[in-house]
Amino acid sequence: MRNLLIVLSFFLLAALASAQSQPQLNLMPMPASVQPGTGQLPINQSFSVAVTGNHDASLDREVQRFVAQLSRQTGFPFRPKSGVAPTLQIHADHGREAVQKLGEDESYELTVADSGAKLTAPTTLGVLRGLQTFLQLVQITPAGFAAPSVTIKDQPRFPWRGTLIDVSRHFIPIDVLKRNLDGMAAVKMNVLHWHLSDDQGFRVESKKFPKLTQMGSDGMFYTQGEISEFIAYAHDRGIRVMPEFDIPGHSQSWFLGYPELSSGSGPYTLEGGGMNPIMDPTRESTYKFLENFIAEMAKLFPDAYFHIGGDEVDGKQWDANPKIQEFIHAHGMKNNQDLQAYFNQRLQKIVAKNHKIMVGWDEILHPDLPKTIIVHSWRGQQSLAAAAKQGYSGLLSFGYYLDLMWPAARHYAIDPMSDAAATLTPQEKSLILGGESCQWAEWVTPENVDSHIWPRNAVIAERLWSPQEVKDVASMYARMNAVSLDLEWLGLTHRSARLHMLHRMAGSADISALRILADVVEPVKDYNRWSDTKGPIDFHAPLTRMIDAVSPESDTARHFSDLVQTFAQSGYKDQAAEAQIRMWLATWRDNDARLHPLLDQTSLLQEDAPLSQDLSALGAAGLQALDYLDKGQPAPDSWKTQQLGLIEQSKQPMADMLLMVVAPVQQLVEASAGQAPHN
Amino acid sequence: MRNLLIVLSFFLLAALASAQSQPQLNLMPMPASVQPGTGQLPINQSFSVAVTGNHDASLDREVQRFVAQLSRQTGFPFRPKSGVAPTLQIHADHGREAVQKLGEDESYELTVADSGAKLTAPTTLGVLRGLQTFLQLVQITPAGFAAPSVTIKDQPRFPWRGTLIDVSRHFIPIDVLKRNLDGMAAVKMNVLHWHLSDDQGFRVESKKFPKLTQMGSDGMFYTQGEISEFIAYAHDRGIRVMPEFDIPGHSQSWFLGYPELSSGSGPYTLEGGGMNPIMDPTRESTYKFLENFIAEMAKLFPDAYFHIGGDEVDGKQWDANPKIQEFIHAHGMKNNQDLQAYFNQRLQKIVAKNHKIMVGWDEILHPDLPKTIIVHSWRGQQSLAAAAKQGYSGLLSFGYYLDLMWPAARHYAIDPMSDAAATLTPQEKSLILGGESCQWAEWVTPENVDSHIWPRNAVIAERLWSPQEVKDVASMYARMNAVSLDLEWLGLTHRSARLHMLHRMAGSADISALRILADVVEPVKDYNRWSDTKGPIDFHAPLTRMIDAVSPESDTARHFSDLVQTFAQSGYKDQAAEAQIRMWLATWRDNDARLHPLLDQTSLLQEDAPLSQDLSALGAAGLQALDYLDKGQPAPDSWKTQQLGLIEQSKQPMADMLLMVVAPVQQLVEASAGQAPHN
Repeated sequence: MRNLLIVLSFFLLAALASAQSQPQLNLMPMPASVQPGTGQLPINQSFSVAVTGNHDASLDREVQRFVAQLSRQTGFPFRPKSGVAPTLQIHADHGREAVQKLGEDESYELTVADSGAKLTAPTTLGVLRGLQTFLQLVQITPAGFAAPSVTIKDQPRFPWRGTLIDVSRHFIPIDVLKRNLDGMAAVKMNVLHWHLSDDQGFRVESKKFPKLTQMGSDGMFYTQGEISEFIAYAHDRGIRVMPEFDIPGHSQSWFLGYPELSSGSGPYTLEGGGMNPIMDPTRESTYKFLENFIAEMAKLFPDAYFHIGGDEVDGKQWDANPKIQEFIHAHGMKNNQDLQAYFNQRLQKIVAKNHKIMVGWDEILHPDLPKTIIVHSWRGQQSLAAAAKQGYSGLLSFGYYLDLMWPAARHYAIDPMSDAAATLTPQEKSLILGGESCQWAEWVTPENVDSHIWPRNAVIAERLWSPQEVKDVASMYARMNAVSLDLEWLGLTHRSARLHMLHRMAGSADISALRILADVVEPVKDYNRWSDTKGPIDFHAPLTRMIDAVSPESDTARHFSDLVQTFAQSGYKDQAAEAQIRMWLATWRDNDARLHPLLDQTSLLQEDAPLSQDLSALGAAGLQALDYLDKGQPAPDSWKTQQLGLIEQSKQPMADMLLMVVAPVQQLVEASAGQAPHN
Repeated sequence: MRNLLIVLSFFLLAALASAQSQPQLNLMPMPASVQPGTGQLPINQSFSVAVTGNHDASLDREVQRFVAQLSRQTGFPFRPKSGVAPTLQIHADHGREAVQKLGEDESYELTVADSGAKLTAPTTLGVLRGLQTFLQLVQITPAGFAAPSVTIKDQPRFPWRGTLIDVSRHFIPIDVLKRNLDGMAAVKMNVLHWHLSDDQGFRVESKKFPKLTQMGSDGMFYTQGEISEFIAYAHDRGIRVMPEFDIPGHSQSWFLGYPELSSGSGPYTLEGGGMNPIMDPTRESTYKFLENFIAEMAKLFPDAYFHIGGDEVDGKQWDANPKIQEFIHAHGMKNNQDLQAYFNQRLQKIVAKNHKIMVGWDEILHPDLPKTIIVHSWRGQQSLAAAAKQGYSGLLSFGYYLDLMWPAARHYAIDPMSDAAATLTPQEKSLILGGESCQWAEWVTPENVDSHIWPRNAVIAERLWSPQEVKDVASMYARMNAVSLDLEWLGLTHRSARLHMLHRMAGSADISALRILADVVEPVKDYNRWSDTKGPIDFHAPLTRMIDAVSPESDTARHFSDLVQTFAQSGYKDQAAEAQIRMWLATWRDNDARLHPLLDQTSLLQEDAPLSQDLSALGAAGLQALDYLDKGQPAPDSWKTQQLGLIEQSKQPMADMLLMVVAPVQQLVEASAGQAPHN
């Protein structure tokens, strides 16, 4: 039996984990107030909705979408009913703003009793939020689908809860963005921050400056018609769309068509490399261009906010340009920072003239700018605190970068009001408007972008909506996993695409051994994939390696680590835990023999061979450690030294991935040698 | 370790099976002639296509779709190239007919060498077929994606290769139909037979007779605009669209709006039940109506063929109507069959007047009809033979009913030229035009319809395209499984929807134990689900039971049965086979303990408890049988009797499903008792 191929499903431990922290409602974000009742409201074929009070076409479409999603979740083909008492009564006192405003009332109350449910809200925007809560309440039970009796009173903690999606480095088609809007609405996010231009591509049609896309993109961009339709789609879901055009840095794509905007001499390519070109803020023609451009874009994007980027201005081109240096001295400026501040002041006036409020990254903070602007921090809460003390509003994205491949718990622990922001006065705190997750697009394609955003984005959504005290990590993971399934019913592909990609790599239907490996690795963190890339990134290369398919966070590794902790806390006596640990270790030990033939057959997997071998060796080491622990005699030093050598080797990234079960195996090895674990 | 939860992936055995019947090309349908070469053509980022010869917008769209699908399969984001030698050269001598004709040339030649590939065809229709072959040739290899060197000369065996999709019983939205057209094109099918009306719903907008959909449907139907766009979509893919309006039976939906067409007095409902209403062929007003209606539909549907149904005319309403009986006698007819023949003659004239060729089911065959009509046989090859002997053309659907839940091999074994048709003269044989698979829609929803059609439909496609000698079953299964993966890249959901449905039933992410059970059951066969339904079917009930999610054919059971055969052929000595058999049996034995808690928690799974218990008992019985075999002493009679009782019980359908591993377990039990197996 030993050398048979045993596959232990990762779900086994997921089930055990969720059984431990059981019966809570699978709501994410957790509402401000939840009062459980008794009994439940059956959801069956006779389900119906009635709307009273304020009523408009947008709400009607929302109710239709709500019914369609409930139908997908439950499988009931609901049909229009008449003359029956509605299962769910909806009442809104007022309608919504034609252009959604920051701080518009999103509150609602939802009461579910066994006889019916009632959703009331001051505005139809609140109804949107409440309907998403209702969808999350519906669960399968022994008596059929039902929503538990409950009284929920809910409103967001922060008025600005966004997701930034970079569509410059890799173009993301409108239909993919739309399903992500659906996901955002499901977790009550309300801003799409659309990062529309960067060095690698300009993605918005400009009728005034057509060369921006003609020369500044690979042909993939959004027409103005598509953008207007997309904004309407977002508005229907209670989501504002804020455009970002990142200047004066991150703007190489502008210069292919309009090199006169640049501080250097070019030539410019979208492939990049070399110097970071930046705009020339000393020429009046630059402002003339921006006046015309921003006027056009201000009409296209109805949102009150306009993000001008302003980050990471690499001053080399300014330093190298004598005319620019002369300008700096002639205007009594001290340095490039002062020049950027001058640029931002000019820019802010243009933005304001178009009735927009300027938003920019940390670097734009400068006392010469009016207090109306918003500072968007990628650097940390201290930027927000510094801004707030000077009277500026702020948004946090530090800690919410989805592309850094952090586990959900790490994002979840970041609070806009913590650290430096915690010491602010209440009035200063009120200037902190919320935050945004960021999906930077160096390493995503339309195929895998969903899996980089979801389900972790739901956790950031909760941080920004729910009360600050909601922070239990075990509860978060259980609820995130439930919401993750619901999101696939909406059409997101964060789970399904991963399987497709593994099938592609394997070139066959048999991906069981491949999944064993893929389930215990994670992509390298932070910018390590980038720094491992020799030379500039090829933004048109396929992203079809294992790193592109695996989850940013290994559930299996987390559960295995929990198992080892349970075992350790029992003084290595808990036999049930040990048996499960052995099962995993044996699975891993034996997996390389299964997987190896496949790895040789396909070019997409060859680089993963050392990873598979190391996993196998870790499995064997862990099993030996358990044998020593069972015997109750310390493992020999020579053995321990050898195993720790293997463990150190296994900690190194391979194929840009990390084996996430190294630490718990190390713990077992050290324990078996009678040594207190390091961590 | 015993009671630990071991999950043995079904893929394990799939891999073993495919390793045995290895290196063949994953082509389905298998081309008429395949000459393997040496070497392979690399497919990488520089892939490009050039078209010479005949060139039109439809071919350009096809090439775009081809490149998009190749991009999805390989993950390469192909970009337009210029000035490079094309990887694939395409040349068509001629264009296509504006309305695709039966028998239009679909042949092509495809040569792949390591330096490039060339696809030539007499018509652009042949190019469509050849491009699908090229897509199937591309595989991942140790050196990257590549197509093997090969010379293929291909043309279809039959000119009519269709899929009937019933959209009356359950409405299927256009987008779901479109992805099924994509699937049909991938396996070179060329007719969508659109079953547009039946008792339960009339699905086409008629401007002349709007009550057909207003009263004769639940509000779900296709507008004429949608239909025209859909036909163009099909034409682009080389697929004709033939409408069917089933009369004079199967026509209750017509009578809600137009009761004057009926032979009885009504009232009529879509829910049905009771008598089967049929049209009144004795009134001139019926023909007046049909003249107007068919004239309208003949314009809407450009195809040269028009299917009038004509099946299963239940004469009770004719018998019960004195006027109709009087008409029969007055016209010297003998019975209802003569009356239907009269109706069909009148109908045929109307159809012909609109420049269409009438097609109908077996029952329309009557010597008074002109030889131009086509007999579509649901009854068997003898109908085709009888028709051919009288000079009528024929199509076979007997044996190709996908809704009967047969295994792929059973459909595969049915040949239009076998049985009674095998004895025809060559000239008579030439009247057999091909066949159609049939997806009748009593038990499908838009959610699971793909999984009822695919991948089995690919096997019927092969039967109708490939030479008659292509019939190796092991090869068929290996190639069908490969094609099945490709079809999901096209957007079909036959694999993914099953997982979604299991998640819904479980109400959680943990479906591992549920899959163990779901992977070894099949829906009851033929019309047994129907006959188990007490009273009329509720066509608006949810289809969310396990029977609705499981595959019509259990791969696991097939592989397990193969394993047991291998073991038996070794005289029960093959230790490797025995070890694998034991692993499966232990998995099943232990599965009920895992699954039981879940079954109790959700109403959608409660009915499956006996099934799970029986699977567990079968696992235990099989293991005991192996123990006896290992000991080399016959199992006691009392034990055997008890086990065979269990086995008989397990053969009964439970929750409308069959446990497909009963027979091989029975074989083990009988062998252990020293008895030759029954089968």
